[in-house]
Amino acid sequence: MEPIRWGIVGGGEGSSIGYIHRSAATRDGYFRLTCGAFDINPERGKRFGMQLGLEESRCYASYVEMFRNESFRRDGIEAVTIATPNATHYEICRAALERNLHVICEKPLCLTSREAEELLKLAKERNRVVGVMFGYAGHQMIEQARRMVEAGELGEIRIIKAEFAHGGLSAAEDARNESLKWRLNPQVVGPSFVLADLGIHPLYLIRAIAPGLNIKRISCRRQSVVKSRAPLEDNAFVLMEYDNGAVASMWVSAVNAGSQHGLRIRIVGSKASIEWSAETPNILSFEPASGSPRVLRRGMPELYPSAMAEDRISGGHSEGLFEAWSNLYRRFAIAIRGKAFSLHEPSWYPDIEDGANAVTWIEKCLESSNQDGRWVKYESCV
Amino acid sequence: MEPIRWGIVGGGEGSSIGYIHRSAATRDGYFRLTCGAFDINPERGKRFGMQLGLEESRCYASYVEMFRNESFRRDGIEAVTIATPNATHYEICRAALERNLHVICEKPLCLTSREAEELLKLAKERNRVVGVMFGYAGHQMIEQARRMVEAGELGEIRIIKAEFAHGGLSAAEDARNESLKWRLNPQVVGPSFVLADLGIHPLYLIRAIAPGLNIKRISCRRQSVVKSRAPLEDNAFVLMEYDNGAVASMWVSAVNAGSQHGLRIRIVGSKASIEWSAETPNILSFEPASGSPRVLRRGMPELYPSAMAEDRISGGHSEGLFEAWSNLYRRFAIAIRGKAFSLHEPSWYPDIEDGANAVTWIEKCLESSNQDGRWVKYESCV
Amino acid sequence: MEPIRWGIVGGGEGSSIGYIHRSAATRDGYFRLTCGAFDINPERGKRFGMQLGLEESRCYASYVEMFRNESFRRDGIEAVTIATPNATHYEICRAALERNLHVICEKPLCLTSREAEELLKLAKERNRVVGVMFGYAGHQMIEQARRMVEAGELGEIRIIKAEFAHGGLSAAEDARNESLKWRLNPQVVGPSFVLADLGIHPLYLIRAIAPGLNIKRISCRRQSVVKSRAPLEDNAFVLMEYDNGAVASMWVSAVNAGSQHGLRIRIVGSKASIEWSAETPNILSFEPASGSPRVLRRGMPELYPSAMAEDRISGGHSEGLFEAWSNLYRRFAIAIRGKAFSLHEPSWYPDIEDGANAVTWIEKCLESSNQDGRWVKYESCV
Amino acid sequence: MEPIRWGIVGGGEGSSIGYIHRSAATRDGYFRLTCGAFDINPERGKRFGMQLGLEESRCYASYVEMFRNESFRRDGIEAVTIATPNATHYEICRAALERNLHVICEKPLCLTSREAEELLKLAKERNRVVGVMFGYAGHQMIEQARRMVEAGELGEIRIIKAEFAHGGLSAAEDARNESLKWRLNPQVVGPSFVLADLGIHPLYLIRAIAPGLNIKRISCRRQSVVKSRAPLEDNAFVLMEYDNGAVASMWVSAVNAGSQHGLRIRIVGSKASIEWSAETPNILSFEPASGSPRVLRRGMPELYPSAMAEDRISGGHSEGLFEAWSNLYRRFAIAIRGKAFSLHEPSWYPDIEDGANAVTWIEKCLESSNQDGRWVKYESCV
Ligand SMILES: NC(=O)c1ccc[n+]([C@@H]2O[C@H](COP(=O)([O-])OP(=O)(O)OC[C@H]3O[C@@H](n4cnc5c(N)ncnc54)[C@H](O)[C@@H]3O)[C@@H](O)[C@H]2O)c1
Ligand SMILES: NC(=O)c1ccc[n+]([C@@H]2O[C@H](COP(=O)([O-])OP(=O)(O)OC[C@H]3O[C@@H](n4cnc5c(N)ncnc54)[C@H](O)[C@@H]3O)[C@@H](O)[C@H]2O)c1
Ligand SMILES: NC(=O)c1ccc[n+]([C@@H]2O[C@H](COP(=O)([O-])OP(=O)(O)OC[C@H]3O[C@@H](n4cnc5c(N)ncnc54)[C@H](O)[C@@H]3O)[C@@H](O)[C@H]2O)c1
Ligand SMILES: NC(=O)c1ccc[n+]([C@@H]2O[C@H](COP(=O)([O-])OP(=O)(O)OC[C@H]3O[C@@H](n4cnc5c(N)ncnc54)[C@H](O)[C@@H]3O)[C@@H](O)[C@H]2O)c1
Repeated sequence: MEPIRWGIVGGGEGSSIGYIHRSAATRDGYFRLTCGAFDINPERGKRFGMQLGLEESRCYASYVEMFRNESFRRDGIEAVTIATPNATHYEICRAALERNLHVICEKPLCLTSREAEELLKLAKERNRVVGVMFGYAGHQMIEQARRMVEAGELGEIRIIKAEFAHGGLSAAEDARNESLKWRLNPQVVGPSFVLADLGIHPLYLIRAIAPGLNIKRISCRRQSVVKSRAPLEDNAFVLMEYDNGAVASMWVSAVNAGSQHGLRIRIVGSKASIEWSAETPNILSFEPASGSPRVLRRGMPELYPSAMAEDRISGGHSEGLFEAWSNLYRRFAIAIRGKAFSLHEPSWYPDIEDGANAVTWIEKCLESSNQDGRWVKYESCV
Repeated sequence: MEPIRWGIVGGGEGSSIGYIHRSAATRDGYFRLTCGAFDINPERGKRFGMQLGLEESRCYASYVEMFRNESFRRDGIEAVTIATPNATHYEICRAALERNLHVICEKPLCLTSREAEELLKLAKERNRVVGVMFGYAGHQMIEQARRMVEAGELGEIRIIKAEFAHGGLSAAEDARNESLKWRLNPQVVGPSFVLADLGIHPLYLIRAIAPGLNIKRISCRRQSVVKSRAPLEDNAFVLMEYDNGAVASMWVSAVNAGSQHGLRIRIVGSKASIEWSAETPNILSFEPASGSPRVLRRGMPELYPSAMAEDRISGGHSEGLFEAWSNLYRRFAIAIRGKAFSLHEPSWYPDIEDGANAVTWIEKCLESSNQDGRWVKYESCV
Repeated sequence: MEPIRWGIVGGGEGSSIGYIHRSAATRDGYFRLTCGAFDINPERGKRFGMQLGLEESRCYASYVEMFRNESFRRDGIEAVTIATPNATHYEICRAALERNLHVICEKPLCLTSREAEELLKLAKERNRVVGVMFGYAGHQMIEQARRMVEAGELGEIRIIKAEFAHGGLSAAEDARNESLKWRLNPQVVGPSFVLADLGIHPLYLIRAIAPGLNIKRISCRRQSVVKSRAPLEDNAFVLMEYDNGAVASMWVSAVNAGSQHGLRIRIVGSKASIEWSAETPNILSFEPASGSPRVLRRGMPELYPSAMAEDRISGGHSEGLFEAWSNLYRRFAIAIRGKAFSLHEPSWYPDIEDGANAVTWIEKCLESSNQDGRWVKYESCV
Repeated sequence: MEPIRWGIVGGGEGSSIGYIHRSAATRDGYFRLTCGAFDINPERGKRFGMQLGLEESRCYASYVEMFRNESFRRDGIEAVTIATPNATHYEICRAALERNLHVICEKPLCLTSREAEELLKLAKERNRVVGVMFGYAGHQMIEQARRMVEAGELGEIRIIKAEFAHGGLSAAEDARNESLKWRLNPQVVGPSFVLADLGIHPLYLIRAIAPGLNIKRISCRRQSVVKSRAPLEDNAFVLMEYDNGAVASMWVSAVNAGSQHGLRIRIVGSKASIEWSAETPNILSFEPASGSPRVLRRGMPELYPSAMAEDRISGGHSEGLFEAWSNLYRRFAIAIRGKAFSLHEPSWYPDIEDGANAVTWIEKCLESSNQDGRWVKYESCV
């Protein structure tokens, strides 16, 4: 297969997420970086693009220019990744779809469910792939977890415990930190900090592992532990009830002192539980209701074939977040190029519906939280 | 010091908790087992007492008989432990206090805050010690945690995460299991199962570690995951707000498949967090907001003197629940015999106020839960 | 059963090991402490005995006096524990046997295999029980490990890895520390420090878990890492070959900086491995050659009945070293009183042959080490 | 900097190590894959190269052809990676050097120290870089460990414990497994299996972390646990003495049932110990002789700048083996292109001397082992 001609908006010099996008997308030749509008500062963005080896003419000052120019080229890009601060996702994504580009969008997809609905509609009209970068879902042990649930190894799902609670912002933030600054600016992130920045990761992991479950209602309480952050929360607790009667409890925090990351999920079923942590992604704990707990390990022949299929180095060796993202980019490529791949069975990936669901979820959490934690009915916009 | 003359109600043959009470109380000679009404079945109870080496005449058919007879003896007991199913605690405790006995009562102290108030009043009138068996609090690393909080090593306390979630009852219970049967009978346990059976343990640990915090309001959601257990819950989530602004989230469960015990607590402060698990009681994780996490270990010279004081075997060797209970019984003895001890500084222990608080807490959890998780104001009966 | 009348030599005030002996022996009423010669300092020893509640006349100034006086009493002791520094074990043990006492002796049994042979002969002549306090062997998960090996769950045993490497003496020792002082005095410990103080613990664990294996030859290298300790070693590596072809590697150290205890054993078989650490004694790792590793936990119904039999508190709760020692004392009592017990199947315990084997092993290690690690044939003196 | 024009010998379709070489080398644009002689089967090798997107004319049937043809091109390769079975390394490496190519060679560099000396001489004459793929050394926490040792944080190094003991070959091997087959064929691997396949990894880690230590003598015992493998060992124990008096113990095995990987190293110093395991590469345990152990984590500001410098994604996120290899390839590129980089301080990497040392070490281990473990003087060929 010919590499997908691909560009990036954002992810410029010094950004936290640019490198992993480039590395994961190009790693196996599925995507070729062809152009970019990497920076809010056009000069810096152009310089950076040229450092990356791009032609000067394809290092753009803005995404507007980039989408227009590329659409006029015969060898224009087919897909674009959006790795800019949250508030810009909607307009950039819409502009990309309008130019018939496939999109890989950073989370959250956008800021309101209204925006999400529009993007959804547009993506369908244009028949474009929109992937949302819930990167942790690309870990092989998540695939394994999904297959275990599907095969009934857990029995009926009863309880879900999810956490994404780091302590990186235990102290009031340094005003000079660029990456931080926008994250705590309601103009850029909308009305939520940690629910949107962290919470939707475990939210999507639940969906990825147990796609059959649907949220019925939500109760959320949130705090601005560091007072100056109000109205943005830096800590929150969310309860969810699912249509099968299962109940989930989630903790998200940026003030969990001492934790460096803290994304962790436990799914409790009638027959067994599983537990996974992003800090040790190569193992999955499997704990039957009776009998002794087991440590499932990446690369073991006992795993489901689809969890083995994405191995890049044999079991025992440590894979990490880059492999997870590479796996997702590979699935995006499969989705974009479709039958061009003669690979193993077509695979799931975090798509625009998942992205839209997450946006609605944030809204519902806020709605509940703003009413002191009252239960709020959840209906996805999809 | 002369050993305290001491009897037991309950804790008979085959009971789950009788052995550890006897073992912990008598271990260091603070208490001498002198009599007992060990069993709901008088015959079996007497036989058991004699097997334990008691005089036949002091193996009683009932606590009523025991308290009366003992009160007539010059060498009658001074203290009694109550290790019977929950519904009986109140009347046995009252009867004991009316005979001027010191009491060590199993948790929960009683079933309603009204009962708790009565017992509280009676204990004060009679000037008797009432200890409540929140046994995990006797672990040395809990003492260490308390001193660290006291010394300000955590800064301001912000968030508390507590769990007591085992999976022992993932399957519908075996109707022939005696110890289980009463636990799931509302006649014996009152209106709550896991909140009362499990939840008040972490509740008290929070109190033991951070005695300065006072709960302001509570929100609770509970489930009967195994339907046949309704109206008793076998799973619950509780949120609490404290007067200093801290917020706590607690999970209690008997259907957390694969977990054998699962009591765990994390206290997050502005400067550092600590974390402790009852399954590995000899270590305490200390995680500064900046810098690397440390593993504090029982018996290290770095610990606070009061945490070192109760060492029974040098650091590195594993101590367990029996030592924790022995520590508490020792403190009960000190409280009972007062100045007879010329030991290190007088120590805290779970007392009748702690027991009463826990009973109120259960009521408030139920009140909230019965209103779909509404916030409920918490006022201790004390 | 009537408690065994029992005395102690050593284990006096401030000793490191006296408390656990008293606590473990008396805990379940199998032994009753009746007399003692607790201290090298007669005055302190007597005072201590009286504090423990003994009659003044049975607080002896020396073991000689004690054994003689007790042998003249109708209610004289039947058994004695020896908890004095190593060099004295032989003469005290011999004196006890000559008075027809059963003996529980601290490790090492004595200092030379010649002494060991004498004690062995004497014990047989007098038909007395001699238990040696390899206390870790009393943990239930060791019983479980033994049964797993016996049942063939590991297949053929191939490799053994054992460590007892703490870092308590990383710095040159404080000359004022009494307990330490004798440990580093060749007059009291003989020609070896860590091999005798630590190494024979894992040595016996191997024997307890895999009693069918016999050592064929030994190669040992040892160091005085802290130079002032020469000729005593504070670090050593031992290799052993067994008659079935298995090979064992052991590390013992008192200078393993940062380790608080460090007793750990791994048995590798053709079908599976098991691993156990004294710092987390309630779990046993079981790792099949193919498939995922499992964590066996104390108190799980899956364990062998004999490993369940000694449970003192239900699974999930932490048991520790005190329970292990209590289990051994219980087995010593069974061995002493024989059929008086109508308990579960008669059990193994570390006996005089195990003690003698360990003494020979130390000698062979030294022999090898003194020849620069040459392989030395091992023949037990038994 | 212009990417280094680069080719590969070996690492063809289905090989275990080809993908990670390509991925690591090209990831950041330092190397551009330009040609290859990927396979012992020329047809399959060519097909594979074309699948990778190479020009047909640069997919060679053999390394001989490749080196010759490339040397005639103006745009011929500058560097080559050798990822073929062990026995071929020497001749391919020599041929490459003779064509003035820089070389990245898989371990072991060659089969005899005589070969190693020749390569060393040749590399010096031609002034070429020869990197040896001790990939684990590229993990950031190894850099951190090196800097800690350098800064004296461990004090004097006293003891080293190293293991690389997996259980992948617990059962007699499947004769149809290609990758395995050559590994157990003395024609291809020379006289050693696990010492050469596994042992030299921890050997080099010691060197990387504590470059100041020099081995004085070696004692090795090895076994063919699965008999059919003789004369190749599948298990071995090695002791080493260093010139500063430190002593190291190493265990290598392919029959450690249940272990999936098992590379682990502990360095014990007079002031502190450090411990690292390849299965959890993002953390490094730091254990001071007094005080509590700490968990150093990748990406923490407390780390040495050079350990931070290679971060590809912020701390808390999991990096794995691919990042370690990418780090090494980056250092190889720096070594090859020298001053073209204006990066942070020039860094160490596993070079031809390290490769040669490892070959000598294998020989010395065999020499010792073949004399029943006698100490053998170690002198590097360098
Ligand atoms: N999936 C994940 O795990 C993950 C992790 C981190 C961040 N993110 C998401 O990635 C996005 C970016 O976060 P970040 O931490 O990299 O932010 P950052 O501040 O570090 O980088 C943002 C980059 O976007 C550029 N930019 C801003 N506005 C632009 C515009 N209009 N046109 C072109 N470039 C523009 C900036 O110059 C900068 O280079 C956010 O939406 C965030 O939520 C996702
Ligand atoms: N602190 C803890 O960690 C902990 C742990 C387990 C149980 N408990 C508490 O201990 C209490 C007992 O629980 P258990 O699990 O041992 O119960 P159990 O059913 O195993 O034993 C109860 C014992 O009480 C006896 N008994 C019942 N009614 C009696 C009466 N009227 N007079 C005399 N004896 C009577 C029974 O015969 C039996 O011997 C409960 O309140 C429980 O909540 C506390
Ligand atoms: N099984 C184990 O795990 C374990 C652990 C620690 C010690 N030990 C063994 O226990 C023994 C004692 O060690 P310790 O650490 O308790 O020593 P210690 O120095 O702390 O105590 C020794 C005690 O013996 C007394 N004593 C010395 N000589 C005596 C004599 N002739 N008569 C009467 N009393 C005498 C001393 O006064 C002191 O009370 C040693 O053999 C040691 O190897 C075993
Ligand atoms: N650094 C590490 O961590 C690590 C890990 C695994 C393997 N290795 C080393 O990598 C090397 C290869 O091991 P592997 O497991 O990938 O082996 P493999 O058998 O899986 O692959 C070897 C590849 O080399 C090709 N080949 C063989 N002879 C050739 C020749 N003369 N010319 C061209 N191609 C040839 C084969 O066709 C095959 O594609 C070995 O030296 C091994 O020790 C290193």
